[in-house]
Amino acid sequence: MKFLRTFLTVLTLGFTFTFGVMAIADTAEPLPSWNDGKSKKAIMEFVAKVTKKGSPDFVPIAERIATFDNDGNLWAEQPMYFQLTFAADRIRSLAPQHPEWKTEEPFASLLKGDVKGVLAGGKKSVVELIMVSHAGMTTEEFEKIVTEWLASAKHPITKRPYTEMVYQPMLELLDYLRVNDFKTYIVSGGGIEFMRPWTESVYGIPPEQVVGSSIKTQFQMDDGKPVLMRLAEVNFIDDKEGKPVGINSHIGRRPIIASGNSDGDLQMLQYTAAGEGPSLMLYLHHTDAEREWAYDRDSHIGKLDKGLDEAREKGWTVIDMKQDWNVIFPLED
Amino acid sequence: MKFLRTFLTVLTLGFTFTFGVMAIADTAEPLPSWNDGKSKKAIMEFVAKVTKKGSPDFVPIAERIATFDNDGNLWAEQPMYFQLTFAADRIRSLAPQHPEWKTEEPFASLLKGDVKGVLAGGKKSVVELIMVSHAGMTTEEFEKIVTEWLASAKHPITKRPYTEMVYQPMLELLDYLRVNDFKTYIVSGGGIEFMRPWTESVYGIPPEQVVGSSIKTQFQMDDGKPVLMRLAEVNFIDDKEGKPVGINSHIGRRPIIASGNSDGDLQMLQYTAAGEGPSLMLYLHHTDAEREWAYDRDSHIGKLDKGLDEAREKGWTVIDMKQDWNVIFPLED
Repeated sequence: MKFLRTFLTVLTLGFTFTFGVMAIADTAEPLPSWNDGKSKKAIMEFVAKVTKKGSPDFVPIAERIATFDNDGNLWAEQPMYFQLTFAADRIRSLAPQHPEWKTEEPFASLLKGDVKGVLAGGKKSVVELIMVSHAGMTTEEFEKIVTEWLASAKHPITKRPYTEMVYQPMLELLDYLRVNDFKTYIVSGGGIEFMRPWTESVYGIPPEQVVGSSIKTQFQMDDGKPVLMRLAEVNFIDDKEGKPVGINSHIGRRPIIASGNSDGDLQMLQYTAAGEGPSLMLYLHHTDAEREWAYDRDSHIGKLDKGLDEAREKGWTVIDMKQDWNVIFPLED
Repeated sequence: MKFLRTFLTVLTLGFTFTFGVMAIADTAEPLPSWNDGKSKKAIMEFVAKVTKKGSPDFVPIAERIATFDNDGNLWAEQPMYFQLTFAADRIRSLAPQHPEWKTEEPFASLLKGDVKGVLAGGKKSVVELIMVSHAGMTTEEFEKIVTEWLASAKHPITKRPYTEMVYQPMLELLDYLRVNDFKTYIVSGGGIEFMRPWTESVYGIPPEQVVGSSIKTQFQMDDGKPVLMRLAEVNFIDDKEGKPVGINSHIGRRPIIASGNSDGDLQMLQYTAAGEGPSLMLYLHHTDAEREWAYDRDSHIGKLDKGLDEAREKGWTVIDMKQDWNVIFPLED
């Protein structure tokens, strides 16, 4: 894996210069943005025991699979899932061709910037927004739209590019796991093709290691050129019970590390915990209202309620953002 | 990749001792089972140009994706797709509990060994047989069923284990590509979970690099233990137009090498050919009635008709099994 690692390090370093995001070098002390405490200890002890040859908990490299939720776990998700902001921006740019949206929900609420109004329509509204903004173009066209949006869009509160709203401690954790020959995957409720254009440069996770929700695509000939057209039809929802299904479909192995932050990740953690060998379940608890956001049981976004109870009951590792992380976003002190 | 390669080599060597299948060592002359000729030359020239730094055709390692059909391309598919034989064997073992199958089609034909009678019912019959034999158990139970079947089942004509009905020249090609830092994938119309239990030991292709057809699975709790139950409902057919869709879904990158043997692979080859950079399209033509089988335009299994025309028209590489391969199956001279 040395070559691949070097390659990814070069990519990550390239990104450092471009976007100002720091990743740790292989040789440095691992996890520098993590304070000494239970969480860091649990992670390092787990990695040590599964990688130590001769240890009863040794896990062969091929089976070192680690799956990470994305929204609220690798990058922030407040005040609204970033992909919904993307959808909203795209719908705004398409609105002049759709005067009917001024009165039709969920478009009307969205165009007024009324997030609660949008969410009042439930999953159906969200799906409708995703369809209108994400379908009707080829996969290549969509990739270009996402890339262009990310290059210019700014977070509404911090005014930073979204790709800088990633968690420095999690970048370090991903790197630390890869140095220890883990294969790191994203398993997210977000759109698989919304993530793939940037996960390699931002997280060092290549497109083939991204699992997410999807709409159907259709192979067709476009002036003699084969393209994949994105259809306004849900293919797969990679959330809750869908996460183990997506993992099985894409990876075909059970993870030994699973990392999430909401009830939508609970089944992925349960599935991981049920493996025969050692396993590490991580729940990120958003506890830092000053440096990030503090939310859990009552949040519209990233609700963590049942998962928090089960994590405590079963002794899973609950990462306390405020206590455990000395840096949240890259380039902070 | 050195470590991974070593690891796979160890696996392959382990398999050599266990099943008697030979793979080439990294240091040996590549592709020894390939005769000198157009096909071998096309492959070696392509690999040389995309891996040579500074070459205008150089392709970065991350983008070196090669996709291989399985049935009739990596292993044989005559006189019937091996997975159908698996389904038939399983249905025979379940038949005592289903007396109605004696008169119901496609079961009646199947139990009489009447392949044509089964195929007369078209895709619907095949799907029904797959459902009955492949659903209603957990993914772990199914993996065990497949593994046990492969350990004892023998090919009806050669009397060899099915895992020895693999093509030695293709094992060498897979290895040669991996030595050159390609990521090798299976993209097959066969069942993804039917292939995954054995592709790593037989081909050196890990489960996460297998794309195939699937039935739906459902996450559920079974006495407090989370399992994935296999449902009698088609999820995805990874054939024809489905292959580029499956590639996009699982890999998220366009291959630069695609290898197939039937019209079911045509769209995969078209999709690969349409990439912006260099690409290599391989069609395996079954021309050896003595050592294997000879079939193409009129075959019920692995029909190659439109694909053969398009390959010739576009100058794709058509591998002539009889001319190009000096060995077909492992352990032959």
